[in-house]
Amino acid sequence: MDCYDAAEALSRPEIAQLQIGRLRRSLAQAAQSPFYARRFAEVGFDPESVHSLDDVGRIPFTTKQDLRDSYPDAMLALPHSEMVRMHASSGTTGTPTVIYHTQKDLDWWASLMARCMYMVGLRRTDVFQNMSGYGLFTGGLGIHYGAEKLGCLTIPAGAGNSHRQIKLLTDFKVTGIHIIPSYALYLHSIFAEIGVDPRDLPLRVALVGAEPYTEEARGRLQELYGIKAYNSYGLSEMNGPGVAFECQEQNGMHVWEDAYLAEIVDPATGEPVAEGELGELVMTTLGREGMPVIRYRTRDMTRFLPGQCPCGRAHRRIDRLHGRCDDMLIIKGVNIFPMQIERVLMAMPEVGQDYQIVLERDGYIDNIRVRVEIRDEFFVEDMRQLGALQKRIAARLRDEILVTPKVELVERNSLPKTEGKASRVVDKRESGA
Amino acid sequence: MDCYDAAEALSRPEIAQLQIGRLRRSLAQAAQSPFYARRFAEVGFDPESVHSLDDVGRIPFTTKQDLRDSYPDAMLALPHSEMVRMHASSGTTGTPTVIYHTQKDLDWWASLMARCMYMVGLRRTDVFQNMSGYGLFTGGLGIHYGAEKLGCLTIPAGAGNSHRQIKLLTDFKVTGIHIIPSYALYLHSIFAEIGVDPRDLPLRVALVGAEPYTEEARGRLQELYGIKAYNSYGLSEMNGPGVAFECQEQNGMHVWEDAYLAEIVDPATGEPVAEGELGELVMTTLGREGMPVIRYRTRDMTRFLPGQCPCGRAHRRIDRLHGRCDDMLIIKGVNIFPMQIERVLMAMPEVGQDYQIVLERDGYIDNIRVRVEIRDEFFVEDMRQLGALQKRIAARLRDEILVTPKVELVERNSLPKTEGKASRVVDKRESGA
Repeated sequence: MDCYDAAEALSRPEIAQLQIGRLRRSLAQAAQSPFYARRFAEVGFDPESVHSLDDVGRIPFTTKQDLRDSYPDAMLALPHSEMVRMHASSGTTGTPTVIYHTQKDLDWWASLMARCMYMVGLRRTDVFQNMSGYGLFTGGLGIHYGAEKLGCLTIPAGAGNSHRQIKLLTDFKVTGIHIIPSYALYLHSIFAEIGVDPRDLPLRVALVGAEPYTEEARGRLQELYGIKAYNSYGLSEMNGPGVAFECQEQNGMHVWEDAYLAEIVDPATGEPVAEGELGELVMTTLGREGMPVIRYRTRDMTRFLPGQCPCGRAHRRIDRLHGRCDDMLIIKGVNIFPMQIERVLMAMPEVGQDYQIVLERDGYIDNIRVRVEIRDEFFVEDMRQLGALQKRIAARLRDEILVTPKVELVERNSLPKTEGKASRVVDKRESGA
Repeated sequence: MDCYDAAEALSRPEIAQLQIGRLRRSLAQAAQSPFYARRFAEVGFDPESVHSLDDVGRIPFTTKQDLRDSYPDAMLALPHSEMVRMHASSGTTGTPTVIYHTQKDLDWWASLMARCMYMVGLRRTDVFQNMSGYGLFTGGLGIHYGAEKLGCLTIPAGAGNSHRQIKLLTDFKVTGIHIIPSYALYLHSIFAEIGVDPRDLPLRVALVGAEPYTEEARGRLQELYGIKAYNSYGLSEMNGPGVAFECQEQNGMHVWEDAYLAEIVDPATGEPVAEGELGELVMTTLGREGMPVIRYRTRDMTRFLPGQCPCGRAHRRIDRLHGRCDDMLIIKGVNIFPMQIERVLMAMPEVGQDYQIVLERDGYIDNIRVRVEIRDEFFVEDMRQLGALQKRIAARLRDEILVTPKVELVERNSLPKTEGKASRVVDKRESGA
């Protein structure tokens, strides 16, 4: 196993031993902040009382609302003057959430990110184009610092300006990129317009994160660009990118357990789920000195993948995200994640690159309508063939989500396009109707 | 003199001694690149033949076109794998110009930038909001790395989103900002809209660069925000920001002569101008290892300010830019820089925050029309008063540019606004008429 640093190669017992020491230190550090000092006192929690990882369940959770309540700086565990970076959520409604970093925190974050990139085969000789927006969004600077730390020639391309992106990719023989999946698909249409096949470029690795997408969508991306695409998991509350990352096995994302304590809990009760069950990911920073965050409820639904990864790393893997607790749709009493629908659609060769989920209310009954873009070559004149396709899609979706949706077939480019994060659920149900 | 580092406090003789040593090293380094190896051979220049600063005139110039011709990497003086950053001009027409940096180059650049910020009174306890776009534009990441190096709490706000800028400025008790002058004036109108007076905020220092603006515009900016605004000079060919910067005397920008060799030449002949005369700034990198650039013709018109700066620093000062050689307008045989017009307008209390220069051709005669925004309180109904104002503006402009322009008075907000760099010259002359 070719590792970027020693912590990456730790065994399970070594990880557990490291974690309890760092957790105790992190709790003591958190207790220095006004927020946690009060919170720990309120619930009668003594950070000194944690002696083993079995004690974790007694530690109070931190929620998004707690972060908002601590605005702008009640979670700082060191003097304000020690902080060198601030990231804030874009949250246009309500109070933003803010995360602070010391220089040491930034250095560690960059190392974790460099470790991710090294794991998927990037080296200092690579040319890396970061197509993420910079600024307060952690995906930009987070990946950027990692790439520079690794020593790649880093091109801070930023988001948008597709023709320039393609010129950079081509002229500078770019071998690695950071890109959002929906933008990668959009960019491919621009490649097609100008008559360049990205498979002819030296590009070989994409870091892909920042929005949920399916295994099938990944397959398409890899095929269209002739690359390997690796999934990244991160959230600004835990720095940003570099929290969990796929290895070259492409089978689940290794959580860097020397830096984070990860748990999966039942989102309703907060109790741990059974081994391998789906639940809400809960994360604790184990090394951030400026602003430790303890048992953070991410709202992201996933599970630990069982067994040892063939790559040899002992850091546990989480499954790709099954959506957010908050994204869950309830239709006719059934819990549905939009990801389930995407997974079914993207597995069908007739389906194009876009779809939309429309929730409607007919009297007192909720319905789900799925508008599906069909590839040109399947958009035939023969209505019977289209009708059969429509039925086939509806049946496969019913098998997955247990509800029969209305399926509407649409032509290529007839659904609204987004260059950024795809937002594909439209809720037309009147509230309180 | 309170300095960030030792090189900042060097005496004149020490600077000269340092410069010749570093120039010789830089020439030898440049000769490692395919571009300079060929160029030096072509013109029969032997880098070893430079023994004193008096030999500088024998060294060949580098032009913007040379940078384009060396696209994408013929000016690299070290192996490609040593490079960790690339910046490219946004140039939508023609070949972009590209600058590469090694990690050592980035570290030095950040130190020079931190030195600028320290010089104007910023410290690690300050909160610094960078309102510059990030990505390939060097103003964003250049200032960002400097602020972090200094240890300020750095808020990577990026460009645009004025309401969020104001929320960050207010909520995080920001004390230093990086802002483009025209955007600062625009942002003030948003402050006014929401009824917040920026003079009530703890803000005290603005770093101002990236577009030419006048002393009068600076005065307004300082008055409106209750701050000190310091001018910055930089260009991506010499890294970006951090090349020359004002000290607290606000009287010319100190060129960091330990890092750059600066000359002023006649743009037509390339010969040095007399001491203190206006000419084109020519710059040489004295420490960049990845991609040295030798005697670069910046096209920027300025001059060395005579005498010793009261601050005590011996690094020579350049005057604020008098425009670019390429921006020079020729009207009725007279050379005019748009900056001259701005300087006159901004000194008049009746004039608002915007203006436009329109070049027209009437038969065979070129005319210049200046459209001037007038402040509400001066935009009176009495035509005679407006007529008198119009004449007064025309007379003052004629005194400065030696040509009588047509002056048109317009109401506030009636000229096209730009959030970014102001582009205020509209050339309506038909080419070849």
